[in-house]
Amino acid sequence: MYDRLTIVKVGGKVVEEAESLREFIKDFASIAGQKILVHGGGRSATSMASQLGIETKMVDGRRITDKEMLDVVVMVYGGLVNKNIVAQLQALNKQAVGLTGADLDCVRAIKRPVKDIDYGYAGDVTAVNTEQLEDLVINGVIPVVAPLTHNGQGQLLNTNADTMAAELAKAFSRSFRVQLVYCFEKKGVLENPDDDNSVIPNLNMSLYEEHKASGAINAGMIPKLDNGFGALKQGVSGVFISNVESLKNGFTTGTLLSLD
Amino acid sequence: MYDRLTIVKVGGKVVEEAESLREFIKDFASIAGQKILVHGGGRSATSMASQLGIETKMVDGRRITDKEMLDVVVMVYGGLVNKNIVAQLQALNKQAVGLTGADLDCVRAIKRPVKDIDYGYAGDVTAVNTEQLEDLVINGVIPVVAPLTHNGQGQLLNTNADTMAAELAKAFSRSFRVQLVYCFEKKGVLENPDDDNSVIPNLNMSLYEEHKASGAINAGMIPKLDNGFGALKQGVSGVFISNVESLKNGFTTGTLLSLD
Repeated sequence: MYDRLTIVKVGGKVVEEAESLREFIKDFASIAGQKILVHGGGRSATSMASQLGIETKMVDGRRITDKEMLDVVVMVYGGLVNKNIVAQLQALNKQAVGLTGADLDCVRAIKRPVKDIDYGYAGDVTAVNTEQLEDLVINGVIPVVAPLTHNGQGQLLNTNADTMAAELAKAFSRSFRVQLVYCFEKKGVLENPDDDNSVIPNLNMSLYEEHKASGAINAGMIPKLDNGFGALKQGVSGVFISNVESLKNGFTTGTLLSLD
Repeated sequence: MYDRLTIVKVGGKVVEEAESLREFIKDFASIAGQKILVHGGGRSATSMASQLGIETKMVDGRRITDKEMLDVVVMVYGGLVNKNIVAQLQALNKQAVGLTGADLDCVRAIKRPVKDIDYGYAGDVTAVNTEQLEDLVINGVIPVVAPLTHNGQGQLLNTNADTMAAELAKAFSRSFRVQLVYCFEKKGVLENPDDDNSVIPNLNMSLYEEHKASGAINAGMIPKLDNGFGALKQGVSGVFISNVESLKNGFTTGTLLSLD
């Protein structure tokens, strides 16, 4: 029987405010068993960029990462956000290590080919190397992963954190029973984006297609859900979309994805 | 017989310019056997702080680290400099992992007590935990260490990179035959600070005291040398002060410290 591994991706407002981040880390730390944390930090990056006079350009929720913006995300994701999370986990006596995809060569990517849009130094994941990470995880270390990858030729790249979490989940499902949790502000996937309580408890592929067609599911949710269903298709045991509260209540609220 | 471990600290201009950093990394990567890299990045931090409108204050070569400056050094040392070095090592097929003292709980410190000067979030090292690092080093991974520590209560701290390297060297000398190399712009410790060729090839304690008393040894060198001699006294096998050239020529130029 494989060990269980919980991969939590946290992003949005939760990460950006000291108080909510501290609360989240406490709840995350209390999850039983082996775990990995993948974090975002987009709002902090945008704010840091603006302080440096660098304009943030987004297309379909994806950041255009020119050379200057790449430096900002490497500083903010790989430095500021990542290391503060690690220090806070250590304060809870949780052995943790902050990583990017370049560290231990764990996530490689290629610079996204330019089609209609030049996303700059945006990385599309090509390979996840879990070997070194597995040793850490088995030894009780929590990898804290920033959404940065590298191309194997010395170039760092900016990779979407939801994708990063899904790619790690898929790769680890070769040797663990992986549950992937997307943790954000909302209580789960909403049937009506204007009603925070309209959580869909169980979302399968056909219901997803239906809600997508009707426009009920918010456009911003689509990449996350595509990542989630993609992970299920490639062996991840469970994918769950919820907020911090559900970490506290043992995932009894939120949206559980299933293939059928 | 213990394995040999080479700990190189690199700082100054070498780290700050893309071209010299790339050259350095190539030379560092070619050092035989197990190794650890400790880097600085002070000039980049000063320049980033200035772009953010934050004034850099130094006392006796040490940075005053208020809350805002701490964020800058965490971003620049822990993010920008550290992750770019790791990505470049990976490009040379060297398995590397970028760490701060918070990662794997490897270097703890206390906030420097305020006496005459309030250094802010400056960390004085209290404990080095080599357990997890040893596993990595033995598995051929190169730890790339940024000069940041943590206090075990969630607070990151700014620690001098020369000190960081010396503390790691002392702790590792319990299980490795450690050579510590301080790599900077100069060819070695100079007898005459104005003459770049006046390298002292062998510097023992009594000669050091003599040169200190006469003022021949530059004030900026004193903390580095105190760290170096301190490391020798606590079991480090060899301490060497030199420039990048000496990495290429197998340490045949530069200054070798000895206790007597």
